[in-house]
Amino acid sequence: MSQARFDVLGIGNAIVDVIAHTEDDFLIANHLAKGSMRLIDEAEAERLYAAMGPATIISGGSAANTTVGVASLGGRAAFIGKIRKDPVGDVFSHDIKAVGVAFATPRADEGPATARSFILVTPDGERTMNTYLGAGQLLTPDDIDEEMVAAATITYLEGYLWDPPDAKEAFRKAAAIAHRAERKVALTLSDSFCVDRYRDEFRDLLKTGAVDIVFANEHELKSLYVTSDFDSAVRALRDDGTFGIVTRSEQGSVVVTRDETHAIAAHPIETLVDTTGAGDLFAAGFLHGLSHGADYATCARLGALSAAEIIQHIGARPQVSLKDLAAEAGLIL
Amino acid sequence: MSQARFDVLGIGNAIVDVIAHTEDDFLIANHLAKGSMRLIDEAEAERLYAAMGPATIISGGSAANTTVGVASLGGRAAFIGKIRKDPVGDVFSHDIKAVGVAFATPRADEGPATARSFILVTPDGERTMNTYLGAGQLLTPDDIDEEMVAAATITYLEGYLWDPPDAKEAFRKAAAIAHRAERKVALTLSDSFCVDRYRDEFRDLLKTGAVDIVFANEHELKSLYVTSDFDSAVRALRDDGTFGIVTRSEQGSVVVTRDETHAIAAHPIETLVDTTGAGDLFAAGFLHGLSHGADYATCARLGALSAAEIIQHIGARPQVSLKDLAAEAGLIL
Repeated sequence: MSQARFDVLGIGNAIVDVIAHTEDDFLIANHLAKGSMRLIDEAEAERLYAAMGPATIISGGSAANTTVGVASLGGRAAFIGKIRKDPVGDVFSHDIKAVGVAFATPRADEGPATARSFILVTPDGERTMNTYLGAGQLLTPDDIDEEMVAAATITYLEGYLWDPPDAKEAFRKAAAIAHRAERKVALTLSDSFCVDRYRDEFRDLLKTGAVDIVFANEHELKSLYVTSDFDSAVRALRDDGTFGIVTRSEQGSVVVTRDETHAIAAHPIETLVDTTGAGDLFAAGFLHGLSHGADYATCARLGALSAAEIIQHIGARPQVSLKDLAAEAGLIL
Repeated sequence: MSQARFDVLGIGNAIVDVIAHTEDDFLIANHLAKGSMRLIDEAEAERLYAAMGPATIISGGSAANTTVGVASLGGRAAFIGKIRKDPVGDVFSHDIKAVGVAFATPRADEGPATARSFILVTPDGERTMNTYLGAGQLLTPDDIDEEMVAAATITYLEGYLWDPPDAKEAFRKAAAIAHRAERKVALTLSDSFCVDRYRDEFRDLLKTGAVDIVFANEHELKSLYVTSDFDSAVRALRDDGTFGIVTRSEQGSVVVTRDETHAIAAHPIETLVDTTGAGDLFAAGFLHGLSHGADYATCARLGALSAAEIIQHIGARPQVSLKDLAAEAGLIL
């Protein structure tokens, strides 16, 4: 196994977020399930944008947010995802490169526009996402840069990749390359509705060892194992033999290994503004720690600290240096 | 004088802000004067964007921000400004209409793109603006909707309108219409460098009574009267006979009438994040109060409260209902 060039390589949908505050009434009137992500077509994107309030535009995308978090923590990060040559694609490309994430996936010359997610944030800080996948649907196995995957300590994939038709093949290709190079493969289950759509395939990824590390929140884990009982879901995860990290919002996180369960507290916050990116940034902190050989408790604390930063402002990209925050908290690696 | 349809009509450059955090070193390396607004061409816009960090995109524009603030306070607001039919123009148009501001200025079919301001926010919360005026340069007297101006209690103009070649004629036309309709005309001096560029013309506007109400911060007022002494500047303003409101950051504001000077404290804040829009939102609160017949102290408190909201997050558009904030503070009109 050669020296790694990247600590974390993220592969996911390349998305720019369009975020607006809204009241719960708007979700109800538009039949939107609070806290979920649904896929929409271009016509619905236009209808929803016209109906929603003034918005803030910030680059997003689940795995992309995670790589930006890793870079902000001082790690070496790379990203693979599909955008078009259009103004929204320019925004995505600028923002991810500006923090030092390596991003070189060829941009589409034609076809659907760069993906946008219309995110409605309710007064309780919860986000409800409506994603127009656009150019994200064009990601194929050809976009997987073999050398890049082989050079990354951990390749991190999002469950949302199961939505675009060819992306799951790209996912499988990347996982195979990583394992051939003796690297680790991590997966986030992304969203409980996403788990509903692809439950059997996701379980298969865990059981067959195609994935070494899985990130899930409580809802996603329960959905994966079709149970309303958290402890049963944790036992089922352990039985599948996958190293798992389960986030539980203000209740902190739980690290599940074959033999043990470690609970780590959430990082304190002053004001919850917008939960968008909480899971993505938790994963960033945890993976940054893991790729540097930190113990699980330190990894989880780095995750909690990164998530705490992101939920105290609008958008899923850090507004301050996470490396500085980690240093202040005594979490230098 | 017929019943007004609008409390405040703003006329200004229609701009979308591209905001990034930066260190002071970046300003120095790029020869940027902290706290100022400079005009840049498209090539410099591209160069600067490539060099700056990840950005948040939020509609802006000085007078536009003010009209959005008035609408957020529950007032009836309208805006005149020039954008192009392009994606950035779509963002501007959506955001201002989504809060209920009347905006119907014809959009340009061709020519330069919708204006963007590249705003660099340093750790002290100060903003340094680099504005590509683009389609803003196409505003002409033909864009001044006479019926709209005549129907507004106060027409509010930004000093930045002196920058695009034809906009000052649009400004003069609007002021004349407003006065014929027995309405009030307000001006913000915008920026001390802007005052440097147009000092004689701005003083003329005040002395001739083309403007009834002037907003300035301390630096702009000193620049207008070419003095380093605040009290001398206030005396000169009084001699010109214009009703003036001078903002002094954390030192609050001073209302200057022909006979009196009222000092009003700043509104307390928790954390200063980004001063972008502080003056614009102060003007929103003050003008909202004034158009509803409030006394000067109440007007200034509404201004201070609105400014306090805007400087505690990124961007110059309110993230919560200013009407609710005003109600909580006992400032219901």
